[in-house]
Amino acid sequence: MYKIAFDVMGADHGVAPAVSASLKFLKDHKDLHLVLVGDAEKIQQELNGKKYNHDQLSIHATTEEITMHDGILDVRRKKDSSMVVALDLVKEKAVDAMMTGGNSAAFIAGSHLMLKEFDGILRPGFMPTIPTIVNNKTTLLLDAGANSDNSPEDLLNFAKLATIYLKTVKGIEKPLVGLLNIGTEDHKGTEIEKETHRLLQSEKSINFYGNIESRDMTTGLVDVIVTDGWSGNIALKSIEGMAKNLLTEIKASITKGLRKFAALGLKKAFREVGAKFDYKNHAGAILIGVNGIVFKSHGSSDEKCYLATLRMTFDAVKADVVNKMKEMIK
Amino acid sequence: MYKIAFDVMGADHGVAPAVSASLKFLKDHKDLHLVLVGDAEKIQQELNGKKYNHDQLSIHATTEEITMHDGILDVRRKKDSSMVVALDLVKEKAVDAMMTGGNSAAFIAGSHLMLKEFDGILRPGFMPTIPTIVNNKTTLLLDAGANSDNSPEDLLNFAKLATIYLKTVKGIEKPLVGLLNIGTEDHKGTEIEKETHRLLQSEKSINFYGNIESRDMTTGLVDVIVTDGWSGNIALKSIEGMAKNLLTEIKASITKGLRKFAALGLKKAFREVGAKFDYKNHAGAILIGVNGIVFKSHGSSDEKCYLATLRMTFDAVKADVVNKMKEMIK
Repeated sequence: MYKIAFDVMGADHGVAPAVSASLKFLKDHKDLHLVLVGDAEKIQQELNGKKYNHDQLSIHATTEEITMHDGILDVRRKKDSSMVVALDLVKEKAVDAMMTGGNSAAFIAGSHLMLKEFDGILRPGFMPTIPTIVNNKTTLLLDAGANSDNSPEDLLNFAKLATIYLKTVKGIEKPLVGLLNIGTEDHKGTEIEKETHRLLQSEKSINFYGNIESRDMTTGLVDVIVTDGWSGNIALKSIEGMAKNLLTEIKASITKGLRKFAALGLKKAFREVGAKFDYKNHAGAILIGVNGIVFKSHGSSDEKCYLATLRMTFDAVKADVVNKMKEMIK
Repeated sequence: MYKIAFDVMGADHGVAPAVSASLKFLKDHKDLHLVLVGDAEKIQQELNGKKYNHDQLSIHATTEEITMHDGILDVRRKKDSSMVVALDLVKEKAVDAMMTGGNSAAFIAGSHLMLKEFDGILRPGFMPTIPTIVNNKTTLLLDAGANSDNSPEDLLNFAKLATIYLKTVKGIEKPLVGLLNIGTEDHKGTEIEKETHRLLQSEKSINFYGNIESRDMTTGLVDVIVTDGWSGNIALKSIEGMAKNLLTEIKASITKGLRKFAALGLKKAFREVGAKFDYKNHAGAILIGVNGIVFKSHGSSDEKCYLATLRMTFDAVKADVVNKMKEMIK
């Protein structure tokens, strides 16, 4: 039986979507046990009257909560918070992984402080999945904000970690890795990018594509895009915002008066495109490089988001991805 | 009679779209004279058989061309290239402004070397216009790539320049200025952003909104977003790529089989949204901070792009924007 600790506190929409996603996911995955970490009373309230296999679910009661307004130091202060306890369960190997929809900065700091990076890794990377226009193809981006700046060696490690991740979790034999840059020519960028380009080119374990501009992040050109945490954060939020705003605009425009009628015939088309570029289907991001499988779900996670993150976390657990990385990185 | 020099060489689609856009634009703007700078034979070929007011158009023949593959040093080498000559016409005050669809790096380097920054400005900023979901509202972004890194003082100057630009060209009394950052809280970012935040907050001539995340670039929250050239470039290309890919996806999805029929009724809706987020309608970007009005149009400019850039350039000329800036910045 696999075990995942789920910190159900601290996200924007409370405990309810976390519990309902858990019950749905467990129904389809009989080899999984979820430990719901948080306010026992609130969790129990959501469970009342619901049917589920009691062997597959337990509550780990905690008394504190890391809120979205807490800083990274609160990880040290709130020792009985659901996030810290869930991380501790990973550290003690009581579970195979943890996930949370809570405070990102606290999650990154807590993972770093409690689990530590494994040998050969100086800084962990935050690795979300980006939808692309190519069917069934997504691109991993890292670092998307665990750090504010990174050395060429960090970026080389990110490329290695993501390569192993895609090999073991997705079965992609030679994942293609691009370096985010302000132009595609080899000499583009600051000294950091130039040196990273050299390192990636000479590293045999990496299938290096070359520089990639942010306009091609959603084109499906590569499997992995490596960049420093600052640029990754800016790029990720840019495309998220644009997708959201553009889809909202289109919806608003077609529901004007008579157009609504015509739009009915296109429902399926919009559903397809909407689903492809809906961040909810890619709501989870692993923090890669620490001793444990730890996933962050969007702070505004609803049931759909949590289901996506549960799926990603469980995939990583079954692939035993962190142990594979530790073996291959040293 | 206003005069604009138009470097018609060096862009991806050759002389033809530049000439056809020029003739269209001149028809609607009788107080404008365009100096087409480039290969006289090629330009004349495009003009043959076309009707236009000969007082409104002249050819300035040049023998060289800056290509997309040239480096910034070629600006010094190719003295009779259309881009360098057009910049020289601005320098000599033979024209009120210049525009080009050619090599961005050469354009920025050439403007800097030949026109120089005006007093109080150390580095020019590249300032494109970004569409937003708010009707008729666009947001200016700078710097979008003239520099690779910038000091807090540079960013303060960018905020001042953009403020004056919007006041004089668009008549916006108190343009709202945001600082691009990885979070909205005041303390977010590196030392550069923290210091810039302090400077912007204490500068009375600026209507400061605070930090803004890249996900809100297209939300219409502010009139101007200031950032360093690296981040601006990454953010700009991210949203451009996402908009292009998403609109392509939607088009592909609705033209599948029977859906095409339903889509006919929605033609207008798509046209509206497509037009709003079509970069072609915002293809021009001013390089702000140098002694002269100089505009860059997309390298892949077609007639529509050039028309948009002509309009923006002419608006800036009529507002006498650079002289206004020079007066107000000192």
